[in-house]
Amino acid sequence: MSKEQPVSTILVGKKPLMNYVLACLTSLQGGSNNLVVKARGRAISKAVDLVQILQKRFYKDLKIVDIKIGTDQVTGQDNRTINVSTIEITISR
Amino acid sequence: MSKEQPVSTILVGKKPLMNYVLACLTSLQGGSNNLVVKARGRAISKAVDLVQILQKRFYKDLKIVDIKIGTDQVTGQDNRTINVSTIEITISR
Repeated sequence: MSKEQPVSTILVGKKPLMNYVLACLTSLQGGSNNLVVKARGRAISKAVDLVQILQKRFYKDLKIVDIKIGTDQVTGQDNRTINVSTIEITISR
Repeated sequence: MSKEQPVSTILVGKKPLMNYVLACLTSLQGGSNNLVVKARGRAISKAVDLVQILQKRFYKDLKIVDIKIGTDQVTGQDNRTINVSTIEITISR
């Protein structure tokens, strides 16, 4: 991810939670003060866990700037369209 | 739940999603314009699904007033304290 991007994004998926914690810490240590955590479907709860762990364990002064929820349309293997909920949490330190 | 309460709360848990959709619709039809949807742990993604379904299928003009995330401490069977993430979505029509 290039440094020109104003805000880094961490996409939370199926990997273990601590992988994403590490990714966020690396990004925040690397100089970016803002970070967007995105997740879809069942990973939404993991994204909330992630932000909570960052706040409680690593950056006590981490602020939640914005939380957005939405819907993505995904085409499944049998060409049916499925609606998947999404979350976007913007954090700032 | 008494009518004196200013805002009704729907707690999303392990029941099927449509049960909660029905509960929200009943509450919104019953005259309360604000509703708080709460969930913990893995039910967080279900709470987001719920709000999205209400918005897309039933109330196109439903507004998301506020989204809060937090942590609850739960004592498990073996007396260990577990941190569980929570979400609170305030909606208004």
